[in-house]
Amino acid sequence: MEVGDRPPERWEELFSFYKRAGFSATALGEAFEVISSITKEKPTTFFAFTANLVASGIRGIIAEWVKRRWVSAVVTTAGAIEHDFIKSYKPYLLGSFFEDDEALHREGRNRIGNIIVPNDRYVLFEEKMQAVFEDLYSEKGPLVAPSEIAKAMGAFLEREHREGKAQVEHSFLYWAYKNDIPVFVPGITDGATGLQAYFFKQKRKDFGIDVTKDMGALAHIVLSAEKTAAVVLGGGISKHHVIGANIVRGGLDYALYITTAQPWDGSLSGALSSEAVSWGKISERGRHATVHGDATIVFPIIHLYRLSLED
Amino acid sequence: MEVGDRPPERWEELFSFYKRAGFSATALGEAFEVISSITKEKPTTFFAFTANLVASGIRGIIAEWVKRRWVSAVVTTAGAIEHDFIKSYKPYLLGSFFEDDEALHREGRNRIGNIIVPNDRYVLFEEKMQAVFEDLYSEKGPLVAPSEIAKAMGAFLEREHREGKAQVEHSFLYWAYKNDIPVFVPGITDGATGLQAYFFKQKRKDFGIDVTKDMGALAHIVLSAEKTAAVVLGGGISKHHVIGANIVRGGLDYALYITTAQPWDGSLSGALSSEAVSWGKISERGRHATVHGDATIVFPIIHLYRLSLED
Amino acid sequence: MEVGDRPPERWEELFSFYKRAGFSATALGEAFEVISSITKEKPTTFFAFTANLVASGIRGIIAEWVKRRWVSAVVTTAGAIEHDFIKSYKPYLLGSFFEDDEALHREGRNRIGNIIVPNDRYVLFEEKMQAVFEDLYSEKGPLVAPSEIAKAMGAFLEREHREGKAQVEHSFLYWAYKNDIPVFVPGITDGATGLQAYFFKQKRKDFGIDVTKDMGALAHIVLSAEKTAAVVLGGGISKHHVIGANIVRGGLDYALYITTAQPWDGSLSGALSSEAVSWGKISERGRHATVHGDATIVFPIIHLYRLSLED
Amino acid sequence: MEVGDRPPERWEELFSFYKRAGFSATALGEAFEVISSITKEKPTTFFAFTANLVASGIRGIIAEWVKRRWVSAVVTTAGAIEHDFIKSYKPYLLGSFFEDDEALHREGRNRIGNIIVPNDRYVLFEEKMQAVFEDLYSEKGPLVAPSEIAKAMGAFLEREHREGKAQVEHSFLYWAYKNDIPVFVPGITDGATGLQAYFFKQKRKDFGIDVTKDMGALAHIVLSAEKTAAVVLGGGISKHHVIGANIVRGGLDYALYITTAQPWDGSLSGALSSEAVSWGKISERGRHATVHGDATIVFPIIHLYRLSLED
Repeated sequence: MEVGDRPPERWEELFSFYKRAGFSATALGEAFEVISSITKEKPTTFFAFTANLVASGIRGIIAEWVKRRWVSAVVTTAGAIEHDFIKSYKPYLLGSFFEDDEALHREGRNRIGNIIVPNDRYVLFEEKMQAVFEDLYSEKGPLVAPSEIAKAMGAFLEREHREGKAQVEHSFLYWAYKNDIPVFVPGITDGATGLQAYFFKQKRKDFGIDVTKDMGALAHIVLSAEKTAAVVLGGGISKHHVIGANIVRGGLDYALYITTAQPWDGSLSGALSSEAVSWGKISERGRHATVHGDATIVFPIIHLYRLSLED
Repeated sequence: MEVGDRPPERWEELFSFYKRAGFSATALGEAFEVISSITKEKPTTFFAFTANLVASGIRGIIAEWVKRRWVSAVVTTAGAIEHDFIKSYKPYLLGSFFEDDEALHREGRNRIGNIIVPNDRYVLFEEKMQAVFEDLYSEKGPLVAPSEIAKAMGAFLEREHREGKAQVEHSFLYWAYKNDIPVFVPGITDGATGLQAYFFKQKRKDFGIDVTKDMGALAHIVLSAEKTAAVVLGGGISKHHVIGANIVRGGLDYALYITTAQPWDGSLSGALSSEAVSWGKISERGRHATVHGDATIVFPIIHLYRLSLED
Repeated sequence: MEVGDRPPERWEELFSFYKRAGFSATALGEAFEVISSITKEKPTTFFAFTANLVASGIRGIIAEWVKRRWVSAVVTTAGAIEHDFIKSYKPYLLGSFFEDDEALHREGRNRIGNIIVPNDRYVLFEEKMQAVFEDLYSEKGPLVAPSEIAKAMGAFLEREHREGKAQVEHSFLYWAYKNDIPVFVPGITDGATGLQAYFFKQKRKDFGIDVTKDMGALAHIVLSAEKTAAVVLGGGISKHHVIGANIVRGGLDYALYITTAQPWDGSLSGALSSEAVSWGKISERGRHATVHGDATIVFPIIHLYRLSLED
Repeated sequence: MEVGDRPPERWEELFSFYKRAGFSATALGEAFEVISSITKEKPTTFFAFTANLVASGIRGIIAEWVKRRWVSAVVTTAGAIEHDFIKSYKPYLLGSFFEDDEALHREGRNRIGNIIVPNDRYVLFEEKMQAVFEDLYSEKGPLVAPSEIAKAMGAFLEREHREGKAQVEHSFLYWAYKNDIPVFVPGITDGATGLQAYFFKQKRKDFGIDVTKDMGALAHIVLSAEKTAAVVLGGGISKHHVIGANIVRGGLDYALYITTAQPWDGSLSGALSSEAVSWGKISERGRHATVHGDATIVFPIIHLYRLSLED
């Protein structure tokens, strides 16, 4: 195929432009094809993302995908459910990558890249989260699964929303709860959620989080699916968990990675989608693409592409 | 300012979405602001880009910016003018980053990332370029400036186009020639152009390229401008030449960098726009942004944004 | 301080050379200073690393640091304990980043960058791991903590070693067991360990992994320490867990990050050590350094530096 | 080959350790093999590097390679010869990547990553460089080649050194002059050298720099060599010029790249050594390696390795 030099004049032309432009643009064109196949085939779709993306404005797009049932299951981190929960009450703020971090600390302002999270957000999280744990403890007993915590957070947000206390339109926890889409958090104690669980445990000594409780549910989704797909934003445990879970069925049929990491250090985060084929995490016949770029730039384009397919 | 979580529903909303999304998206939002200022203020605008982008489909967008006179001067590399010239006759092809390079070599197919340039393109370049040098030698005498070579290539393309031999719509050399926009190529011998100059020199012993001949013209543009701006795609000599030239006037008023390089190795390619302020390459009061990302993904979005401002 | 241009002539001169060379070399020089302080002060030291480094030859250096009690606690991933365990029986193999992944899959060879893990390694892991879980179940009852699993793996290796079945010299699980150094694995189900836990659960229905069980132990280490330090190789959950745990005491006194990730996407993996200061994860008065580079190149140099301090 | 987990205990063991450690370490091990072959075979060796490395402490190692005649020709940028020249009189200073660039500008301190170049260095450069051009003009006439300028700078430094004004031990220009090793600078006007050439041209109207004058000399070196090698630190015009020059002889026999750039954007700077094989820039039978990393960390190790081979 020839490199296409005709510049796009309208947004609609961007999709076909990218495919033929070469370099990372062509990878983005391949991503469109994966998304197009997913849209048509409607496979069981896993959605993995990192916490920082929920701190960013990408949270709203993530929530939209869950709201529209474009995904069947979410796999993410403790930080992601915290940010989503907190932002249902109070927004995060824009700052700069070059803040004076010692000054920020004295002011009680925590930095995530160029996003600022004032301390009061975590004070609020503590208060609300203890209530969530109390609810959960009453309802489910002392030993809970991470997905049950995420679901309880969604249910709590729904109630607070009805009482005019929380805004849930852009919360993926809320929409996952409403749409009965499981949110798996294999590293649930790694974050403020873990800290709150630890505090709660002081009150309820027998409270615990049994991470093996989610494994049956996850395996069931994978094994009962006719076809599976994964949309993976960033790396780390969320990425690994989704692709690893698909080994037992011979690999994903569709996979899209968006990443800033590089493969030369052998990291899972930087591993290209092709590497997953060697493991049977993606099927040999699977359709997959790796786009190198920051998801805050790339994923909104993919979102608009997906929206265009719905019309 | 608060991080904005409302997802974009239409392309037009993407511009404001990015600004408030955080991380690299916010940098892209800042890039829109730089472009918006440039569009309104109409400063003398320098356009720097690397050769690979001309091998890619970005060539057509570059040509469009020159055609529409959105830029006042181009600074680029030998590879860039070669790719632009060749592609006016024959397209480049899409391949993969994972080709067997030894097999490609045996087949006479040269690889640039995932773009393939068959050898016949360079055979064609040799034939045409000797004619260009002959024209130039007749017209300008033995000692020429790089910008004169680029202009002669544009003039040659125009003639070949009139004779139905070349397609010039997406050629920046052609549009620079038509619009009398200078194309500076400070490293002109580094590439096939240099090789052809060397071959030509065997025939015309007194032929030479005096790179100091362009310095007056470049200095004149910088010094006579009321305000200056730079749009810089990628790094290397093109980036450095544009910002370096603006020292003599106290720095650029507007600057936009799009780059995949990182600052930690002290490279000019990875240097953020703020570093240029210390040198007086960008004015202390200048408006500037650095977007981390591949220009093949990012620049088409900026192009559509710029188009939207024209309507 | 002046940039130092005198080239190193002997290895010993490399340490002082780096500090004054500028760019990433200077960051490595700062890393030496952090390590020097840690060596002198002997703070409670957390050691975080990613799984791929255990697949690589860095495993042996990690084990050495645990053997020599240079660290007080390990925080890592499921993949890390798997690779360490398996490699006590069978080595991993060197391959290339450019293998044919579909062919590898057909041959039962799994790829991690340029390292190959044949399937028989996982067959062995299954067999051994079921025995580990059985031991643990008998000894600790149905509900275990991740650190108990890691410890049981170390104990199992020790027994197998005594029986001539396993080689433990370069195993960090073994040395952690021998030296009573806890190995925390907050995302324990994310990997083959999780899969084996799931299989074991089919036999022993009441078996579970309660991740909150480790939180008290971790908090105790942090809170009872006079000073704390962290050596962090790579990113992800291990990095976050170590720095997050130190919030409750006002932050780490010393921190060294080695990373290939970049900060512009707001990822925790790419976050510079200064960002952690805003959170109180590193103390305002803490000494910290971020070295940009692949730990397989950088950490062996730091290891040799540390060895040189012991003499 | 098996991944080797035995940790290095002495510096000498680092060489063999890297090769078997996997990931980028293995690439560094391959780099040692390329260097070992070059040391034994003594091919005509090209040495390419970027300007920032001369601003850094790597300058002294570069000078050492030229002093020891380990290289046959240098290809670099205008910035590189400027930094080398200036540092023969006054050192550069260490700063931070996070300086306030507006404050630096007001103080007349220019920043290159974490290296600071006070303005007086450029005042000195202006004064000396006008004298160099005057010498050259008297000796060679009005039209000079870039390599003649570099040579004149080396000769000037030698004279100033004899007069106790300059320190030349770590100057590659000086040692290139002493050892009659050509220094090619295809983009000679891109930098302060260009600015000074422009000023000089005001005095001597007929002065010019004919970049084609060096092409015969470069071609002669390539074509008369039995075997050729390239050691390439960083990217840009220097990298491209060296590998491009070797097309005419069927490609380099040995090539080593050290780079922080990535291939996914199709940039020449990020292109892996294998891509050069498709072009015939590296021979199909050539031995080549690409190490991902900052040359300020990696090249000193390679230097010590090379030194170890000499003993």
